[in-house]
Amino acid sequence: MKKYAVIVAAGSGLRMGTSTPKQFLLLHGKPIVWHTIEAFLHAFDDIEIILVMADDYMDTGKKIIQTTKSPDHIRLTAGGETRFHSVKNGIQYIHHPSIVFVHDAVRCLVSQALIHSCYHAAMEKGNAIPAIKSTDSIRIEKENGNEVVDRNKVMIIQTPQTFQSDIIKSAFAQDYSEIFTDEASVVEQQGIKINLVEGEKTNIKITQPIDLIIAEHLLKSKISKSSG
Amino acid sequence: MKKYAVIVAAGSGLRMGTSTPKQFLLLHGKPIVWHTIEAFLHAFDDIEIILVMADDYMDTGKKIIQTTKSPDHIRLTAGGETRFHSVKNGIQYIHHPSIVFVHDAVRCLVSQALIHSCYHAAMEKGNAIPAIKSTDSIRIEKENGNEVVDRNKVMIIQTPQTFQSDIIKSAFAQDYSEIFTDEASVVEQQGIKINLVEGEKTNIKITQPIDLIIAEHLLKSKISKSSG
Repeated sequence: MKKYAVIVAAGSGLRMGTSTPKQFLLLHGKPIVWHTIEAFLHAFDDIEIILVMADDYMDTGKKIIQTTKSPDHIRLTAGGETRFHSVKNGIQYIHHPSIVFVHDAVRCLVSQALIHSCYHAAMEKGNAIPAIKSTDSIRIEKENGNEVVDRNKVMIIQTPQTFQSDIIKSAFAQDYSEIFTDEASVVEQQGIKINLVEGEKTNIKITQPIDLIIAEHLLKSKISKSSG
Repeated sequence: MKKYAVIVAAGSGLRMGTSTPKQFLLLHGKPIVWHTIEAFLHAFDDIEIILVMADDYMDTGKKIIQTTKSPDHIRLTAGGETRFHSVKNGIQYIHHPSIVFVHDAVRCLVSQALIHSCYHAAMEKGNAIPAIKSTDSIRIEKENGNEVVDRNKVMIIQTPQTFQSDIIKSAFAQDYSEIFTDEASVVEQQGIKINLVEGEKTNIKITQPIDLIIAEHLLKSKISKSSG
């Protein structure tokens, strides 16, 4: 089956307190998004990457693509007003029956094992959404205060959110709604059951300065393992 | 107002995959729980610490106490079957009207600022529970699958869970229930409204090897800031 990875890098990175959007910050001398692209290029020889970037950063995107292992496997396209619109712009280039990964550009530590397990689970069940259990107590804010929930039932959702192409394409033909916070919520709106698979604690999302420090060290230990 | 910190170190640390419970693993040459004790000793000159440890580790506990800045401010007591029983054992030594912090031994990076803000909020409102917003999408597992929740309403709960002494003592006089996953849930059971305060992303719980790496680096940056 053909594979596409839609890598969403359209964020502005305000939370980092830097003028550079976080997907362009350097990790071991390369932009975060470069590491993310490489993770998918290494997962499958025949994968196509659709890189979604904000208009202002198209030139930066082009330069980064040229430094990857397979620039001719990567298409660059513009992001939209929200994540929904960015992903919608990205998937319009998918015309073959395929498995589609939608992945946060700032989760550059995703492992080959997780990409492969999402692929197989989505082949079998139509979709595969990686999730991990919470190690902390969780409360939900309500109108009159807040309410504890059973921690064993709380799943923290990651990416790549992975779908058979017909499912994601038909879901993104819907009109936009504010309840669409991720791709799973868009697909679920069509009555499709969301299939959670085991995620990875190390598959972190780099949103704050401390995450960058964590990522540096995870990456170092990953490199020493693969060369050891 | 008098202050007590009940530091709960009765866990077995199975998740670390080490034979040493995680609260005794070394960070910058000192056990994790040593760092935690020091954080509270430095927060207030007049604080008393009640250190709750599993029976098998009482000798280890005694040795660690001797290496802290104020061994005579620390009482060591045995843990119970569950966290509820451990905390209940700890708070029996509190006889003065006071503010009581209940804190995970493995959250050794708690800041002075957070301890102080919990103190003031609990003085004013009876209780103060630190919490941070989730940066990831969250789903709750249900009988027939799972359901997305509004991420802006999901609060990840931390410690020190902080209470006026009469409130926590009367709550822990209740019979044990399986729904008691933290001190807030015990107090809430008595119809008391839980008061969330802003926690800290760096106030991490060391439960897995990766957390230890993260803690090493956070501690290093904390030390370089305080000496800089």
